[in-house]
Amino acid sequence: MLIIKTTKELIKWRNQCQHFVDLVPTMGALHAGHLSLCEAIKSKTQPDEKRYLVLSIYINPKQFDNLNDLNNYPSTIDEDLRLCRESNVDVLFIPESSDMYAADTSVSVNENCLSLSLCGATRPGHFDGVCLVVSKLFNLVRPSRVAFGKKDFQQIAIIKRLIRDLSYPIELIAVATKREADGLAMSSRNLRLSKEQRAKSALIYAALQSAKNTNTSSSQELCIDEIGRKLEQELSALEFKIDYLTVVNVDTLKSCSSLDSKALLVIACFIGQIRLIDSIMLHD
Amino acid sequence: MLIIKTTKELIKWRNQCQHFVDLVPTMGALHAGHLSLCEAIKSKTQPDEKRYLVLSIYINPKQFDNLNDLNNYPSTIDEDLRLCRESNVDVLFIPESSDMYAADTSVSVNENCLSLSLCGATRPGHFDGVCLVVSKLFNLVRPSRVAFGKKDFQQIAIIKRLIRDLSYPIELIAVATKREADGLAMSSRNLRLSKEQRAKSALIYAALQSAKNTNTSSSQELCIDEIGRKLEQELSALEFKIDYLTVVNVDTLKSCSSLDSKALLVIACFIGQIRLIDSIMLHD
Repeated sequence: MLIIKTTKELIKWRNQCQHFVDLVPTMGALHAGHLSLCEAIKSKTQPDEKRYLVLSIYINPKQFDNLNDLNNYPSTIDEDLRLCRESNVDVLFIPESSDMYAADTSVSVNENCLSLSLCGATRPGHFDGVCLVVSKLFNLVRPSRVAFGKKDFQQIAIIKRLIRDLSYPIELIAVATKREADGLAMSSRNLRLSKEQRAKSALIYAALQSAKNTNTSSSQELCIDEIGRKLEQELSALEFKIDYLTVVNVDTLKSCSSLDSKALLVIACFIGQIRLIDSIMLHD
Repeated sequence: MLIIKTTKELIKWRNQCQHFVDLVPTMGALHAGHLSLCEAIKSKTQPDEKRYLVLSIYINPKQFDNLNDLNNYPSTIDEDLRLCRESNVDVLFIPESSDMYAADTSVSVNENCLSLSLCGATRPGHFDGVCLVVSKLFNLVRPSRVAFGKKDFQQIAIIKRLIRDLSYPIELIAVATKREADGLAMSSRNLRLSKEQRAKSALIYAALQSAKNTNTSSSQELCIDEIGRKLEQELSALEFKIDYLTVVNVDTLKSCSSLDSKALLVIACFIGQIRLIDSIMLHD
């Protein structure tokens, strides 16, 4: 595995690379969710096809709306290196912030529709930061495929839009959310949960599943408002502080008025200081 | 010469292309100024190096702040084809607007510092449109070199910033303004000048040169305010309507307080309905 630490080196490597390149952008603190992104992207490669897999680790300060969250974002670089080697990553790109952003950076990349609601409403500037860093990684790595996890459903919708609207010749591979044995969606932020919080967090996905099953098992469909109300009561009773809890169309992120095949039940909630998100398709 | 009319075909061509690619983005109505961009970029190629030159022709509606200007923008496609063939363009890319922009486009690329003054102040949204279309062309064509004309000095400063801040591995080649025999800076918009207006337009560059010579020939440097005042009087007397007339640092576009090696005297003025820009370095 080649470890590249500067944008200059990366450009040099990329200019010499004659094959197609895949990209898995991460902020490190790698877990099985990230590894499933690598697996998913590699599974698309034909046996006789030579491609390179670039995994980037960069805690992008511009996508943090909260300095406390940035400062507490976990970093486990030795373990990350081990996991990248095990996952047959070809190039690990770990740039420094001074290399990624000039002090007088003045160009922004903004998505002005899908990014306004849900996490975008609670985390102002977050998706602007995501769009900026993803554009930079696309330009440096010039991948033909990129993998993102479905846990960040809004990020996926926005990056798909970024790819379309900026004419990137890149295929986005959306990978199913990887979960712990008890159902909690894997997230680097889970490392920050106390033992008690960690145990309780499993109830988020259990509640989503229960809402889905209630809906699909009843002969008559529950209305969306009723699903939401019931779930909100359940989770609030467990002292989760709900940020949003709603059913949206998975592509447009607009409120779903009918329980169709695009209906995605989405939640963001706080457990103590830690914000967790999860989602479930209401029809599989 | 290969003529490519869709983004899909262009991506296919680019994915198969094993060599480095150069790009000259234009809005058509090609003239010797555009050809000098092709020559400048080709002159950088080593004799034994195989590269492809892509020239794009696309009248980008998003960079027009004025519908009248968009509707009257000249189009001379047969002549453009001839000139491209003569200039050894390898690929001519002429996309349709329906292919370039989805109806619900929601991603923007903005430069938020250099674009605020000068032409940016008079033409709101113009440079946002430029940044968007140039990003799209960069992503589709993936050039390693791109040529722009120095006549659009603000555009060059902004695209340099775009390249830096979005980490494009692209070298910008800034090419000297090509002029008519009487000194008028070549521009597709010159086609719209009446005979009388065309004759008078030559006086813009003559006035810039005169300001430069007054400055460099006097034993004591004239102050910038004085140069500006004198020039404004001269041109206003000729019924040019001045939009801006100032001395800026060629890189930062900030007002120049001393006549140093970066000092660029810039002008935008209207002659009838037609807006012309020009500039001159005060020290060569």
